[in-house]
Amino acid sequence: MIAVDANGADQGPAAVAEGARRSGLDVLLFGPASAVGASDGHVEVVDAPVTIGGHEEPAQAVRSRPDASIVQAARSVAEERAEALVSAGSTGPTLAAATLRVRRLRGVHRPALAVLLPIPGGPVLLLDAGASVEARPEHLVQFAYMGACFMEAVYARERPRVGLLSVGEESGKGTPAVLAARERIEAGGGLNFVGNVEGFDIPGAGADVVVTDGFTGNVALKVLEGTSKLMREAIGAAVRSSPVSAVGGLLIRGRVGRLREQLDPEAVGGAILLGLRKPVVVAHGSFGPRGIASAIGLARRAVDEDMVGRTAAALEAAGALRSAGAGSVAEVTPESDGGG
Amino acid sequence: MIAVDANGADQGPAAVAEGARRSGLDVLLFGPASAVGASDGHVEVVDAPVTIGGHEEPAQAVRSRPDASIVQAARSVAEERAEALVSAGSTGPTLAAATLRVRRLRGVHRPALAVLLPIPGGPVLLLDAGASVEARPEHLVQFAYMGACFMEAVYARERPRVGLLSVGEESGKGTPAVLAARERIEAGGGLNFVGNVEGFDIPGAGADVVVTDGFTGNVALKVLEGTSKLMREAIGAAVRSSPVSAVGGLLIRGRVGRLREQLDPEAVGGAILLGLRKPVVVAHGSFGPRGIASAIGLARRAVDEDMVGRTAAALEAAGALRSAGAGSVAEVTPESDGGG
Repeated sequence: MIAVDANGADQGPAAVAEGARRSGLDVLLFGPASAVGASDGHVEVVDAPVTIGGHEEPAQAVRSRPDASIVQAARSVAEERAEALVSAGSTGPTLAAATLRVRRLRGVHRPALAVLLPIPGGPVLLLDAGASVEARPEHLVQFAYMGACFMEAVYARERPRVGLLSVGEESGKGTPAVLAARERIEAGGGLNFVGNVEGFDIPGAGADVVVTDGFTGNVALKVLEGTSKLMREAIGAAVRSSPVSAVGGLLIRGRVGRLREQLDPEAVGGAILLGLRKPVVVAHGSFGPRGIASAIGLARRAVDEDMVGRTAAALEAAGALRSAGAGSVAEVTPESDGGG
Repeated sequence: MIAVDANGADQGPAAVAEGARRSGLDVLLFGPASAVGASDGHVEVVDAPVTIGGHEEPAQAVRSRPDASIVQAARSVAEERAEALVSAGSTGPTLAAATLRVRRLRGVHRPALAVLLPIPGGPVLLLDAGASVEARPEHLVQFAYMGACFMEAVYARERPRVGLLSVGEESGKGTPAVLAARERIEAGGGLNFVGNVEGFDIPGAGADVVVTDGFTGNVALKVLEGTSKLMREAIGAAVRSSPVSAVGGLLIRGRVGRLREQLDPEAVGGAILLGLRKPVVVAHGSFGPRGIASAIGLARRAVDEDMVGRTAAALEAAGALRSAGAGSVAEVTPESDGGG
């Protein structure tokens, strides 16, 4: 059973409900019954009309509004009525509800938002794409294992290539945090670690998993999306601007349409929060029913392939868990953000 | 007179010499006389066959090899035989030679590499694109004024919109360094400051000047270049993949060619090091004669429009200079990297 929050999507709760029905999977759907309809077939509806907006302070809103749909959905996962969470709403409240209710894996410092980029030759998993704004070396190390386990478990990618985002390929290039993380990942072992990768390796699919801090990752993601949009629009405008090229545009429309499908985020299923005790998928706010169905399918695969258990085992084997006694973890300074 | 280092360009010193001759401006050209030819017309050649490679440790190489062409060229600027420096070689040695010989403006913490992005509706100036890997708030503040003065002086952009790159538009979004920089820029005044901008505002030309640390800026630049290349290749492949769409491709080729010109880095002239006592332009390694001529023209405009003097005045007026007694500067912690 997958818990789905129907509130907060750009196309409204009814589109999310339609996606849930289309997925063909068992879904516990939290949203306004007036919009999502009654339980039927594989979809069990819980009437939850209260929503948390994207502009509220997330942790505060989650704590004070236990009846909000995202909080109820997260609680259903914590109480094991559902095995994973899918949200079509804002990332902030989803992250807050998931961290507070579903909670982090034991020994994980903080969750990371991992985004599947629909790149030819990919997809490429970029993390952290913005769950935090800064990352210490021990966070980057955990992100590397979390991302690799996701690609292995959910995308059946054998020994995915893991790269650490930096400003040059040489091992000496990067911030002190990147240099320290690189040393620890190499020492921890167990990964197909390709060392530093650069900005052009993200669209170039130079690695299957690209590890970075949430600030850089968020900027990189938005530059990529913005540039892709700019290029599509500029080419469209060039084609439309003369009758001759408009005829040319009609002739290539089919091929370019197929290219667009290849780059389609709805086919991939959105972003996933890694490092929690259960899979949590954050569908893009713009997703229609097809994208929501993909997101639910993604959550289902993460459950079926035991992504969480495999992540915990990999982190432990590498000595990268916070409470473990192994080598690199001894360097971790005590901190106040709890250990799960 | 503009000093030009002819070594290090992908197309060789002869292509740089050809660009210098094509520029129609007075140039002091440092390179192997065997390749760049003799002095003639506006171009005075100084035989300087020694080059510093991109893989050497730059500061060390610059200190130990006074005969290297980039060191000689930088010295000619320091000694006022030339008014500005243009390098077609690697960024590292250029940055080291310029910082050691041309030196920083008094009160400037560190130079920034500013890249002109050839975006429709732009260009957009992105800085720092990688001169440093980290930035403290006081660095970001200086970058904001340096970038604005460049766009005003060299691009005659009146009151250019300056944005601070972050992960959300709200003033509370970002790293501690970004939040502190935002407060100081708002307090300093004198800029058309639009607040935070996000990754998609770079390709979207949401600001004329985008300010960030060198790590994030370098990643953003390479993601933008890589995505643009990926899209062009993917569309080219889609067009070529069937006879019908190939005909369509032929029909739109003229329009797309004009789009490519609009996005052409050679027309813009490359990157510029800001915060030094003289203008220093770093042409892209791939530039041919046309790009080199643009880079020389860019350096000439920076001299003629007194970019450096205007930058010093703006930094002083905002109380953003390191040695000034004004408000925000009092918070700057003492540091060991010298003050110029």
